Amino acid sequence: MDEDGYQIYPSWTKRPVVIGHEFAGKVAAIGAQVTDFKVGDLVTAEQLHWCGKCAICRKGLYNHCRNMGRLGFVTNGAFAQYVAVKEKHVWNINGFKEIFGSEDDACEAGAVIEPTGIAYNGLFSRSGGFMPGATVVIYGAGPIGLASIALARLAGASQVIAFELSPSRQTLAREMGADVVYSPEELAKQGTSPHQVVLDLTAGYGADMHVECTGLPKVILPEIEQALAVNSKVVNLGRRAGTTPSTLSIYQDTGSQSFGSLGHTGYGTFGYIIKLMSTGRLNMRKMITARFPLERAAEAVTSLANREGGKVMVKI
Amino acid sequence: MDEDGYQIYPSWTKRPVVIGHEFAGKVAAIGAQVTDFKVGDLVTAEQLHWCGKCAICRKGLYNHCRNMGRLGFVTNGAFAQYVAVKEKHVWNINGFKEIFGSEDDACEAGAVIEPTGIAYNGLFSRSGGFMPGATVVIYGAGPIGLASIALARLAGASQVIAFELSPSRQTLAREMGADVVYSPEELAKQGTSPHQVVLDLTAGYGADMHVECTGLPKVILPEIEQALAVNSKVVNLGRRAGTTPSTLSIYQDTGSQSFGSLGHTGYGTFGYIIKLMSTGRLNMRKMITARFPLERAAEAVTSLANREGGKVMVKI
Amino acid sequence: MDEDGYQIYPSWTKRPVVIGHEFAGKVAAIGAQVTDFKVGDLVTAEQLHWCGKCAICRKGLYNHCRNMGRLGFVTNGAFAQYVAVKEKHVWNINGFKEIFGSEDDACEAGAVIEPTGIAYNGLFSRSGGFMPGATVVIYGAGPIGLASIALARLAGASQVIAFELSPSRQTLAREMGADVVYSPEELAKQGTSPHQVVLDLTAGYGADMHVECTGLPKVILPEIEQALAVNSKVVNLGRRAGTTPSTLSIYQDTGSQSFGSLGHTGYGTFGYIIKLMSTGRLNMRKMITARFPLERAAEAVTSLANREGGKVMVKI
Amino acid sequence: MDEDGYQIYPSWTKRPVVIGHEFAGKVAAIGAQVTDFKVGDLVTAEQLHWCGKCAICRKGLYNHCRNMGRLGFVTNGAFAQYVAVKEKHVWNINGFKEIFGSEDDACEAGAVIEPTGIAYNGLFSRSGGFMPGATVVIYGAGPIGLASIALARLAGASQVIAFELSPSRQTLAREMGADVVYSPEELAKQGTSPHQVVLDLTAGYGADMHVECTGLPKVILPEIEQALAVNSKVVNLGRRAGTTPSTLSIYQDTGSQSFGSLGHTGYGTFGYIIKLMSTGRLNMRKMITARFPLERAAEAVTSLANREGGKVMVKI
Repeated sequence: MDEDGYQIYPSWTKRPVVIGHEFAGKVAAIGAQVTDFKVGDLVTAEQLHWCGKCAICRKGLYNHCRNMGRLGFVTNGAFAQYVAVKEKHVWNINGFKEIFGSEDDACEAGAVIEPTGIAYNGLFSRSGGFMPGATVVIYGAGPIGLASIALARLAGASQVIAFELSPSRQTLAREMGADVVYSPEELAKQGTSPHQVVLDLTAGYGADMHVECTGLPKVILPEIEQALAVNSKVVNLGRRAGTTPSTLSIYQDTGSQSFGSLGHTGYGTFGYIIKLMSTGRLNMRKMITARFPLERAAEAVTSLANREGGKVMVKI
Repeated sequence: MDEDGYQIYPSWTKRPVVIGHEFAGKVAAIGAQVTDFKVGDLVTAEQLHWCGKCAICRKGLYNHCRNMGRLGFVTNGAFAQYVAVKEKHVWNINGFKEIFGSEDDACEAGAVIEPTGIAYNGLFSRSGGFMPGATVVIYGAGPIGLASIALARLAGASQVIAFELSPSRQTLAREMGADVVYSPEELAKQGTSPHQVVLDLTAGYGADMHVECTGLPKVILPEIEQALAVNSKVVNLGRRAGTTPSTLSIYQDTGSQSFGSLGHTGYGTFGYIIKLMSTGRLNMRKMITARFPLERAAEAVTSLANREGGKVMVKI
Repeated sequence: MDEDGYQIYPSWTKRPVVIGHEFAGKVAAIGAQVTDFKVGDLVTAEQLHWCGKCAICRKGLYNHCRNMGRLGFVTNGAFAQYVAVKEKHVWNINGFKEIFGSEDDACEAGAVIEPTGIAYNGLFSRSGGFMPGATVVIYGAGPIGLASIALARLAGASQVIAFELSPSRQTLAREMGADVVYSPEELAKQGTSPHQVVLDLTAGYGADMHVECTGLPKVILPEIEQALAVNSKVVNLGRRAGTTPSTLSIYQDTGSQSFGSLGHTGYGTFGYIIKLMSTGRLNMRKMITARFPLERAAEAVTSLANREGGKVMVKI
Repeated sequence: MDEDGYQIYPSWTKRPVVIGHEFAGKVAAIGAQVTDFKVGDLVTAEQLHWCGKCAICRKGLYNHCRNMGRLGFVTNGAFAQYVAVKEKHVWNINGFKEIFGSEDDACEAGAVIEPTGIAYNGLFSRSGGFMPGATVVIYGAGPIGLASIALARLAGASQVIAFELSPSRQTLAREMGADVVYSPEELAKQGTSPHQVVLDLTAGYGADMHVECTGLPKVILPEIEQALAVNSKVVNLGRRAGTTPSTLSIYQDTGSQSFGSLGHTGYGTFGYIIKLMSTGRLNMRKMITARFPLERAAEAVTSLANREGGKVMVKI
């Protein structure tokens, strides 16, 4: 308990835990100087624990803090019974109870804010969004891709085009708001390709925003680059080490730009998503497709390897 | 017919005409060098006829062209049997036939792009839009206000709050996407006010975007200024001569900004709206509440005076 | 001393103090967990002490923190012998010693970062700056106006036009980079006015950015509004209670915007100014025109009343 | 001569012609409906002749017009005795006579607006510029690189760092405003590299903007990517076919973006540069290092091959 009183201790007894590090739960105890939370509040916490005092944080660019702590990596993680988080990283989701019906379901919804935040940060906070009516293409319909699809639809894209190999994820992509979903493998069998589909669907103009969520840029980036509209944006969310061949002259010819995006914090991102979910505008809980009790957590982790389905939760 | 071949001559035989100057119809003839249209195309035209060569047009700020021509004002207007418009001001709406069912209905839809464009220009092109999840307040639910409501909802506002006196327009506001609609008169009777309602609905934070569509800023601006969120935007669309008292220190205290907006051209505004209407995302035709034949045009004009209902059309 | 170790205690023995609250000095002691400063560092501190945990700070909009502390207002102020400031509000200015020659002069320079930051925040962080080659008009050449002039010149305005009544401040305005400086009173005697001068100097187009630093918007805003270029920006820095009549239709006709701006923190503002002053690009110390010892502080305060000269310092 | 009267015919008798296509001269004749020019005006013309009616031009993104004409490529070029250009592509530079002293020198200055415009478009119109005080790095000091250096300095960079192999261009880079200029070859001999120099000069933070002007991105991009500051911008101006390996994860880790830029038209770019040169703020004529009469034009072209010196002019 420090003099700034930032710590709060969410209770994990009712906490659903998304594989990895996202979570939501009920506050079990609070530090002496905590001002904005009380015991019993439903909360979720950001995973990126920025310091608030380095030169980068002072610019408000919290995702790139020079002294970043990460919940579940450098501190006690999300599978622990209790976790202490500074107040400044915690968000109130009491409003979820009414819309999702039960505390359990509210916590499930709270636990998917973080992956939604990664997409929100990439599409809107970092890249500045798109004009309503634009065409948006999402490559890959894992959790981040699904969130990108839902958000592109929510923010007024006139066409949301998705590419995804897994049939179960294709179905989820449609449920989250994709107008059309294609398998690159199926397209190849038909002698066509993602970029050709995008050009066909846009009268040859190309798409205004491309969101890379596969982590396979060597395959995807050439497709994106052949389907860039004038003044389009590429948002790189998928992670991959090493280099990717990029045709820079295409960005020049089309006057386009590419954004690297990482993280989910700052800009009010969690706050906006909480408002969208509290008002029923956005239901990201739909992307949870499997739930495991803590004793079967290893099984949950294994289930991720096949790149099928949506978000997998471990519930404590 | 000039060597640039810009003129096209839409046929007005099947043309619905919105009171004033917006219209849509079928192309009856084209100039020798017209490249992008053919006889029989369904089209609408922008009303602001920018020159394309002044210093302002060269910046792409067409709404503020120094040599602006206005259809129906300085040239032959929208009630004439044929109108000649340069190709660069005309937009193809052939795609409306499928979604709206008939050429007549397609033309009706085409004729409301212009007022929708005024709202789109104000909210997005000029003011840069809002973050998905933001709270947007629309003051006045005439045609421009109704379009603002529909667009705010479409672009992902989590709350769309409207204020409007007329019961018929209140109903339309709800149909176009407002979550709640209040009459300032009714609020006054209850001892409250628009700004108090906005503060109540936003936990005291205020709204992120305020769109003035009444043309009565002396009444409305003080309400807006008492309900500004930090970093909020005021978009002034309603027209009114003279001065309005403004409390500048509130914009400073909240770090807010105010945008004057006028016009509907440039930025691809018509193009985006056509895509939104062609894909079924946006149905602005719903705001047409009265239709008059040409011989009863005077009656149509009269019907506007009471500030009731939505868009009034004269059909030829 | 808290567990976060944020406090640092600058020594005021060599500290020049600008009237009010800005200051610079040498660190006399540091908290146990301070990581980025050491005893003997030359530093200055921001005056706005944001909490870092409210919803507004989490967006990075520190100037509008909901729990703002202010040095010299709610905590021990700038005339005290020692002041304790959290590390996150403090900036290192060791680099000033080389460029300004002595510790004393370095501290003087450090003490004028804050007013420069108010101008920087208004012109660049809040309003997004102007295109190089733009015409910028500054109304009022007190400390904030002088900083605005210097920054407008620095950032590539092709014309910097200033209006100021006081002859001593007119001279300072020219020294800080104004191309031309006019007295509104003299213009009135000649039968002309500020807006007419701006229109004359811009071939009738008006100016791209207008910075209000007089705190007399009832007089100045009408001048600004008659000289708005298309797509121009008005930056309101001067403070004044009450309402100001504003002609909203002009902002519509010209597609212009108005920004309320307050504060100097966030966005890396202090950091950028420190780099500009360390590299010799910007010398804001030139605007210090009077220095008083602490025992004559009352005299210093009195000297401000006549609105003559630049920045007045009290040195301890 | 068309009914829109757009054509103007500059006289080439006094016209200096930059190798390739940029030029300036005196108007010899005008079309019947030309409104903004008269015989005898000193003018320069943009080289990119956008149509003004395609979907891209209607967005104001003229550099990417779908029907682009290019002076000197698809129409009569810059070495012809007379050239006809539509009024909308021509800019008045009468104001250069006073500042540059003679018509000849004014035309020389006019002829370097185009390459300056390519840099201006990349740094400001396309990429949104940098905060005053930022660190800007220019790779390559040919004409576009030299213009980028001058503009970065003009717009308030606190550090302008240049990399260039040619000694003559290194000298020009310093004259145009670079604070430091390094030869990558010399750095390699010393066991260091461009990115290490940038990190050293920025206390490890990296540079805020990187401008690629060499056309050798395979060599330069890896250097840039190792010296990206958080939230930095890469502006690709140099042209090169084929792919370049890019480490996308670095843009994610630093929250950075990359802009493809091409062209010089739109956004008022020529207008801003003309104002900067007319007011003496910017003297791009300094980068002209060789002048040939028309009969030695072949020699002029040859002189470009060695990548030495600045701009080469052919004078008629």
